[in-house]
Amino acid sequence: MELHSIIVNATILTVDDSNRIVRNGAVAFNNGVITYVGATPEDLDPFDEVIDGRRRIVLPGLINTHGHAGMSLLRGYADDLPLQTWLNEKIWPWEARFTDEHVRWGTGLSLIEMIRTGTTTFVDMYDHNEAVADMAAPSGMRAVLCCGMIGSDNQNVRDRKLADAVSFAKAWHGQADGRITVMLAPHSPYTCTPHFITQILDKAAQLQLPVHTHMSETKWEVELNVQRYGCRPVAHLHKLGMFERQTLVAHAVHLTEEEMDLLADCDVRVSHNAISNLKLASGVAPVPQMLARGISVSLGTDSSASNNNLNLFEELKMAAVLHKGTTYDPLAVPAETALRMATRNGADAVFQPDLIGSIEIGKQADLIMLDAGRANYQPAHNPCSHVVYAANGLDVTDTIVAGKFLMRNGELLTLDEERVMYEANRMVGQLMRGD
Amino acid sequence: MELHSIIVNATILTVDDSNRIVRNGAVAFNNGVITYVGATPEDLDPFDEVIDGRRRIVLPGLINTHGHAGMSLLRGYADDLPLQTWLNEKIWPWEARFTDEHVRWGTGLSLIEMIRTGTTTFVDMYDHNEAVADMAAPSGMRAVLCCGMIGSDNQNVRDRKLADAVSFAKAWHGQADGRITVMLAPHSPYTCTPHFITQILDKAAQLQLPVHTHMSETKWEVELNVQRYGCRPVAHLHKLGMFERQTLVAHAVHLTEEEMDLLADCDVRVSHNAISNLKLASGVAPVPQMLARGISVSLGTDSSASNNNLNLFEELKMAAVLHKGTTYDPLAVPAETALRMATRNGADAVFQPDLIGSIEIGKQADLIMLDAGRANYQPAHNPCSHVVYAANGLDVTDTIVAGKFLMRNGELLTLDEERVMYEANRMVGQLMRGD
Repeated sequence: MELHSIIVNATILTVDDSNRIVRNGAVAFNNGVITYVGATPEDLDPFDEVIDGRRRIVLPGLINTHGHAGMSLLRGYADDLPLQTWLNEKIWPWEARFTDEHVRWGTGLSLIEMIRTGTTTFVDMYDHNEAVADMAAPSGMRAVLCCGMIGSDNQNVRDRKLADAVSFAKAWHGQADGRITVMLAPHSPYTCTPHFITQILDKAAQLQLPVHTHMSETKWEVELNVQRYGCRPVAHLHKLGMFERQTLVAHAVHLTEEEMDLLADCDVRVSHNAISNLKLASGVAPVPQMLARGISVSLGTDSSASNNNLNLFEELKMAAVLHKGTTYDPLAVPAETALRMATRNGADAVFQPDLIGSIEIGKQADLIMLDAGRANYQPAHNPCSHVVYAANGLDVTDTIVAGKFLMRNGELLTLDEERVMYEANRMVGQLMRGD
Repeated sequence: MELHSIIVNATILTVDDSNRIVRNGAVAFNNGVITYVGATPEDLDPFDEVIDGRRRIVLPGLINTHGHAGMSLLRGYADDLPLQTWLNEKIWPWEARFTDEHVRWGTGLSLIEMIRTGTTTFVDMYDHNEAVADMAAPSGMRAVLCCGMIGSDNQNVRDRKLADAVSFAKAWHGQADGRITVMLAPHSPYTCTPHFITQILDKAAQLQLPVHTHMSETKWEVELNVQRYGCRPVAHLHKLGMFERQTLVAHAVHLTEEEMDLLADCDVRVSHNAISNLKLASGVAPVPQMLARGISVSLGTDSSASNNNLNLFEELKMAAVLHKGTTYDPLAVPAETALRMATRNGADAVFQPDLIGSIEIGKQADLIMLDAGRANYQPAHNPCSHVVYAANGLDVTDTIVAGKFLMRNGELLTLDEERVMYEANRMVGQLMRGD
């Protein structure tokens, strides 16, 4: 039996259906579940623990819907290059040398960054996934893990990859009190043959798991798809039956009107990775047009190799300002919409809309607290605006997942930061020396 | 006689002509001036104070080349509106009610934010400038202050504004040990008559002061200029003789190739305010094209009413990623160039290139230290990349101007933060109640 805890006297951004904001409000939780949201009660006797929320803004934990946590080991290793050169000449050759140990410590760096900047759930598509899960489970974060399957020319290798992904799913889906779930992930239409994609989709159907893939990130990739298969990636994946499964696609930068219509019709979820798309010169996704069609667009950082950090508050502000500027429409993505993308739409993206994404009774107590007593929150006109436009990820003081503090008052409770940083640098030192 | 201080065992990003990076390096300063840059000396006896720089990156203090510090009082008051509606219906009516007292505390908020996020010099264009100077001088920051002159219909009012700006310049230019300098500032070609602009330029010539103005921020403003004067803003200001003076223009979003050629020929300095331009849906300035012509483009936050914070690290990253994405050129603004925009080009923008902007012997000791012992700086591949792409303004631990610590180990030494925040909220409370 856990403590029944209540945060009091805080400003609560619920991100519920009416975007209710409670000033001088309270959130209570017990056994990981939210039990109360509203005005601070007069009688606090029923609670085992009362947490001071004065000068704090409480909001749902942010949900990072696309990334590759292990790649933090490659932060700053290769910048200012086009995506394909960057992948083929820099990233993939290094990654080929990664062992579980590399991925473990690269993931550790990512978990530290995400917890420190208020992310409570992350989607990860990578390799050496046992190492990712081994780090994620004790960290206390909520994780949606995917083995990223790149289809080689060799049928045996492909079969082995799929078999590994299936055993990983069987071992980990629903583990860590349900905090860890799994999706199946063909890496992309340009790195997987149609046959391999359908094989993966068949398994996803069998295991009742959603699928996650990279799609239409660059113009190059779209053109390649047309050359190879006579159609653009959306039609291609649709024909292969992907959208009959619950699907989350990352990027979705280069889309026609018809493709957006089809994504909306098929209820495909999109992870918008604005900073990575800008940095890799891939372009700007048509987010306002997707939102206008009712497509659920959420936010992802992509990896630290193309961002180069995992501070989702940067994506939150970027989503709110970028599309205004590029479409000349000051209402393109209002603050409330951006905040919803980082929370509610993130819950949609991982197909857990009833579990996370807002502060409502019965949902998981995935909460973050911001120090709104800092200069960038004054004057206290509008807390939603401040969270989107003025906040800094490092304003997060407390990160709570399923009622458990992963960071409290700036102190990380579940990870040994010094150890992780030491090991990450040691791993890279070995790679640089060619050990 | 001040202490001769030395920071040792740090990673030094000098931003000198060769972008020299010194690992395990040292920077010494005495009487506000840098006396040594290089490897950490064996003999530290000559120094009065030795500052531990382990796990720190030291770089030149950032230079924010356009803003309106007093407007922090309007943070979050009006968002998601087009520039002209925002100005005419929200911002200007409130500002009309501002007194010195409002501007004092709004400026205080801005100074706190800038010092905390590593800005050492800022350009300010506003009203009630005595209040700005009164706050800036004891804060220890380097400030370039401008009375923003909006030309009314009334010649007497215009004459008074210019007379006030001239007396402000006479009173403050070179004050606070030279930390405070002044420019003359016609607000913009669309808010000042040609006659008023030439009056101001005459005074600038007489007083030997540079000029600063808003230019070509929106399409609307460019079209208006064409309707009124038969030419676009660059030609208009050129004809009026502005570019014969040392000139810094803010925004420069909507420019033709010919206009960029002319700005380059006239050595006009540009302040790029990417986030404000995006948020107000004004557009994206052609920064790579300006840089290619040798135009010195620096970075500005604009005000907290259109940003909504003054964290120049956000502009630094934005400058590096935005133009890659919008031009499909992954080399559009490399990390080194972006860092130069935030430092050296900032020194150019305020016409103090020999005084600030890089870590070199003889320059002012305007330095900041970043906590590079955090996860977002691991692995330690490339400090310049990390500063541009991975850093967070709140990683700044120490802010030093002219050899004096304004923040040391996260503690602000020259401003009473609680008092400033209290007074800023009190001022806004009065305005909201209509007092």
